[in-house]
Amino acid sequence: MSGLLDNIHGPADVKALDASQLAPLAQEIRERIIAVTSRNGGHIGPNLGVVELTIALHRVFETPVDQFVWDVSHQGYVHKLLTGRNGPEFDLIRQREGLSGFLMRKESVHDCYGAGHAGTALSAALGMAAARDRRGEDSHVVAVLGDAAFTCGITMEALNNVSATTGRLIIILNDNEWSIARNVGALAKYFNEIITNPLYNRIDRDLKSVIEKMPGGRSVIELGRRWKRETKDFIVGSSLFEAFDLRYIGPVDGHDLDSVVKHLEFAKASEQPILLHLLTQKGKGYEPALESPETFHGLGPFNVKTGRPPPSKAGSPPNYQDAFGQALLRFARDDRRIVGITAAMPPGTGLSYLANDLPEQFFDVGIAEEHAVLFAAGMATTDFHPVVAIYSTFLQRAYDPIIHDVCLQNLPVTFCMDRAGLSPNDGPTHHGLFDIAYLRTVPNTIVMQPKDEDELTDMLWTSIQTAGPTFIRYPRGAAAGVAVKAEPTMLEIGRAEVLEDGADFIIWALGPWVADAVALAKRLHAGEGWRIGVVNARFAKPLDHTLLLSQADSARGFITMEDHVLSGGFGSAVLETLNDHGAAVPVLRIGYPDQFVDHGNGVADLRADVGLSAESVEARVREFISARMPATQPV
Amino acid sequence: MSGLLDNIHGPADVKALDASQLAPLAQEIRERIIAVTSRNGGHIGPNLGVVELTIALHRVFETPVDQFVWDVSHQGYVHKLLTGRNGPEFDLIRQREGLSGFLMRKESVHDCYGAGHAGTALSAALGMAAARDRRGEDSHVVAVLGDAAFTCGITMEALNNVSATTGRLIIILNDNEWSIARNVGALAKYFNEIITNPLYNRIDRDLKSVIEKMPGGRSVIELGRRWKRETKDFIVGSSLFEAFDLRYIGPVDGHDLDSVVKHLEFAKASEQPILLHLLTQKGKGYEPALESPETFHGLGPFNVKTGRPPPSKAGSPPNYQDAFGQALLRFARDDRRIVGITAAMPPGTGLSYLANDLPEQFFDVGIAEEHAVLFAAGMATTDFHPVVAIYSTFLQRAYDPIIHDVCLQNLPVTFCMDRAGLSPNDGPTHHGLFDIAYLRTVPNTIVMQPKDEDELTDMLWTSIQTAGPTFIRYPRGAAAGVAVKAEPTMLEIGRAEVLEDGADFIIWALGPWVADAVALAKRLHAGEGWRIGVVNARFAKPLDHTLLLSQADSARGFITMEDHVLSGGFGSAVLETLNDHGAAVPVLRIGYPDQFVDHGNGVADLRADVGLSAESVEARVREFISARMPATQPV
Repeated sequence: MSGLLDNIHGPADVKALDASQLAPLAQEIRERIIAVTSRNGGHIGPNLGVVELTIALHRVFETPVDQFVWDVSHQGYVHKLLTGRNGPEFDLIRQREGLSGFLMRKESVHDCYGAGHAGTALSAALGMAAARDRRGEDSHVVAVLGDAAFTCGITMEALNNVSATTGRLIIILNDNEWSIARNVGALAKYFNEIITNPLYNRIDRDLKSVIEKMPGGRSVIELGRRWKRETKDFIVGSSLFEAFDLRYIGPVDGHDLDSVVKHLEFAKASEQPILLHLLTQKGKGYEPALESPETFHGLGPFNVKTGRPPPSKAGSPPNYQDAFGQALLRFARDDRRIVGITAAMPPGTGLSYLANDLPEQFFDVGIAEEHAVLFAAGMATTDFHPVVAIYSTFLQRAYDPIIHDVCLQNLPVTFCMDRAGLSPNDGPTHHGLFDIAYLRTVPNTIVMQPKDEDELTDMLWTSIQTAGPTFIRYPRGAAAGVAVKAEPTMLEIGRAEVLEDGADFIIWALGPWVADAVALAKRLHAGEGWRIGVVNARFAKPLDHTLLLSQADSARGFITMEDHVLSGGFGSAVLETLNDHGAAVPVLRIGYPDQFVDHGNGVADLRADVGLSAESVEARVREFISARMPATQPV
Repeated sequence: MSGLLDNIHGPADVKALDASQLAPLAQEIRERIIAVTSRNGGHIGPNLGVVELTIALHRVFETPVDQFVWDVSHQGYVHKLLTGRNGPEFDLIRQREGLSGFLMRKESVHDCYGAGHAGTALSAALGMAAARDRRGEDSHVVAVLGDAAFTCGITMEALNNVSATTGRLIIILNDNEWSIARNVGALAKYFNEIITNPLYNRIDRDLKSVIEKMPGGRSVIELGRRWKRETKDFIVGSSLFEAFDLRYIGPVDGHDLDSVVKHLEFAKASEQPILLHLLTQKGKGYEPALESPETFHGLGPFNVKTGRPPPSKAGSPPNYQDAFGQALLRFARDDRRIVGITAAMPPGTGLSYLANDLPEQFFDVGIAEEHAVLFAAGMATTDFHPVVAIYSTFLQRAYDPIIHDVCLQNLPVTFCMDRAGLSPNDGPTHHGLFDIAYLRTVPNTIVMQPKDEDELTDMLWTSIQTAGPTFIRYPRGAAAGVAVKAEPTMLEIGRAEVLEDGADFIIWALGPWVADAVALAKRLHAGEGWRIGVVNARFAKPLDHTLLLSQADSARGFITMEDHVLSGGFGSAVLETLNDHGAAVPVLRIGYPDQFVDHGNGVADLRADVGLSAESVEARVREFISARMPATQPV
């Protein structure tokens, strides 16, 4: 049966298949996704869960005239395969020359909306529906939302606006009981109650058996309406959605292709916004993924047979995430006031250590970053010290609570911003390149970045002793591989660390760039005989003004290095300090340009793409220094 | 009966009153609030609506041991009066030496949590409850939420977490059917259905009559439990909250003090999180406020007898809000693709003009800034041009959708950021002093600020012709009073306007500072004979590099002026450009320092507080220039 997928070059080819060919097609798609993600990594679990749904959508609707908006869109691989992207670009998905791991408008006309963060689909789809209504067209807009999207307030904001905005919108609740981690909160429980309510299941079976006998759409609708009317008073389970003025149908087995198609046909004909509740299994069709849904939500390369990742190279350094998680657990053991809070990222942030060992001091609030920060602020008013661990890019969600609640009230909350810098395979929705700028403009913030995992531990310790808001940013993945001291050191706030002395030219670096700066200074010393100073800045705010200005008295130039865009970043803070104190010393600022950075194979590659390869940086530093070197002699 | 309020110096005094004295106390409170807000302006309607509720809370609970978290906290005047703040500081509420118009932790131990933005109370209260549980204490946490808070996603995120987090939390739904404007969306309709459901009302009456006969708390609880169990299957109306695992009681007349007290006693004894649904009237007890709830949500001074504001001075310029609203209406008439979107701020933003005349091109999504921006993004993908009008401070809520959806996808959405700069009487939660920094760090943004209402109109026109995201910021209140051209001019993106020639020293100003700069240059010319250049920067991003660098060739100094904090702001962008092009010209940056700015009487006062009075600025500019003036002669 091989070869069905090879002949799918677009949605029309999916429609042209005989119904009997769909199950084999689903099987081919699963095999293709397992094979490719085992090499490249990726969101395998979510994609295996929506194979039937995606095929059904393309059988019933017609993109790009009809529009599918996929929440997060990490589950868009099947859609990509069915919309003409099953070539080498799919083999290289999440790699340099390959497809994005998410949907992107620039990748295909069939991607009407891109995403990467959760909870955006319903709002965007509603905007498209409103636009369609105003154009007087009758195309369809389908929003596909995981159950986790309902833990995110934006989805609820959109839900509140649906019925007042449009008469036609199809919402698929793709319910697999998981976000990245198992879903939390009352709604997850509520969805589960609907599923397990025997009355519900009976009604659905009845509906299904009747629908199956119907010849055409109209009668199906008619029946659906009658069914709805007749059963309304008994279906307590759908009252949540009825409070939002939505027609609710479900739950339906999301892997029963025939049933999903029929229910989509029904939804298509609805003249009222409708929510179709599908039950799917994350990782369906691949045993290891079914067994470990959390691991197989998204992961790196793995062995298809065993489901295991390749053994890590001996001697490879631990990840920042683990260093952070272990340090927090250590401190929290001795101090019950320390609590860890995350928004559906316990393993990704390293908070799993705390969750496992001190569950009373751990909170996972679901995909609800704003609530996470406000909840932390509430705890912080009463003598607790919350440590909020949220990726830099997702913390953008909580910008207002950070300003309005934590910083204005000057509350002792520590923010640990993982994925500050690049998240290479994920791409622009996941890089964390704006946080220094958006945080340092806010009063009362302290923003720091460690050069290695030991300093991260010191910073965490320091932040917990600090009476106001602190922000620690660090990259995804491997730390420096240094030993973490048994007892952490309390750092002085706003004090940088001089690593290499130098008078004429001094590099101020943040985070992983510190090691790059040290290496570069060594190379330039060896090659040119130059003695370049290196400072581990530690604090983007408050900047070590004292040190900087004392160096400025004699320096001919500073070089700043940061994993952040240049506009408003760390180098910009250095410029402000120098200028405002009348120190006219030129600064070469090394950082990301004013553009979104794509996905790619790794940090080195992506840096190279934007002119930040080690060679480019060295060339620019060399040129900067050469032009300003005193004519008489090297330093 | 006068004099009851005068003897209230704290919650204990409220408790000590005889029940018969409470109604007269409520009357005195209303009179006091009407008198003071008629002089100072303020949130009169919301406060008149919670007089009985606040008295009841202080009868039943004991702050600061028990904690009240008021959503937005603009309805906290009664609470202030009952917690020892009924002195001259209340007479001066929202004025320089007076109380804040919101609750603030630094103002009183009875203010356990400050606010100013909607939707934060439930999350913060839940944090406090979790902290209390972990301390093993048995105090009470009460969150008071208007119905509008439920249009805000954060409240829903919190709701989803309540039952998993604590067993004890009291949520008051203070339902008056209004946010600033009348509430929108499905939930508002749903709340109304509960209220008008006759079954519900009957049950509530029954409950009430029985509760009234009960001698003590325990039996009340027992009864409540039985009542709950017995009626559960009939109360369809409470299913929404039951989906969130909350015990629901209501609706209850929120002005029946006795009933509110009894229901609070019941809630106090509940061993499950409980939501008490109160019906209140915005403006209760003051006829003009009852007649115009939107006007009397919050307003400036007014005549107590007539409810009318003092006549505006003849010849006073129009507000920026009106200029914007009228311009948008004008453009939208000719182009159906233009739609206006706001988040519960139609009159405040000036979108009322569009709402009234072209309702099909207008959307108010409730207090749901993230949804507003995503909805706009969705529409923008399909050839519409949404204009999102949200105050600068509230747009912080939508930072992630701005980055992740609008800017990354480079969609044509115009953001009109009202209240950029100071919102003097409101204070730190309402000033808009961070937007340049948080926006200019994001790729694809265009950030501009007009010097007057005619230029605002040109900028709006220009933005609508622009294929990507544009942001226009302008202050609250009076514009410059210039005539708006019949036909708008298309501005060149990134091109500044030279207003006064000058070679040695040039001021680059944004927005209202442009007029200040022109006046200052005149004074310095008259006084010292100096010829200072003045540039209306127009664009904070992209900055007019060409002009700036050409001037830098000969300039001895630049001065930047902006209504924004200095860290990362417009002046910082100027420094970046100069430095990165090797132009070593010193810059005097005039803007707000790194601190939160309090409330006060007006822009001039607050500027003076932070060293930005006209005199201070002139002195600093004079000193900056003098120190750099060529010794030979003035320019």
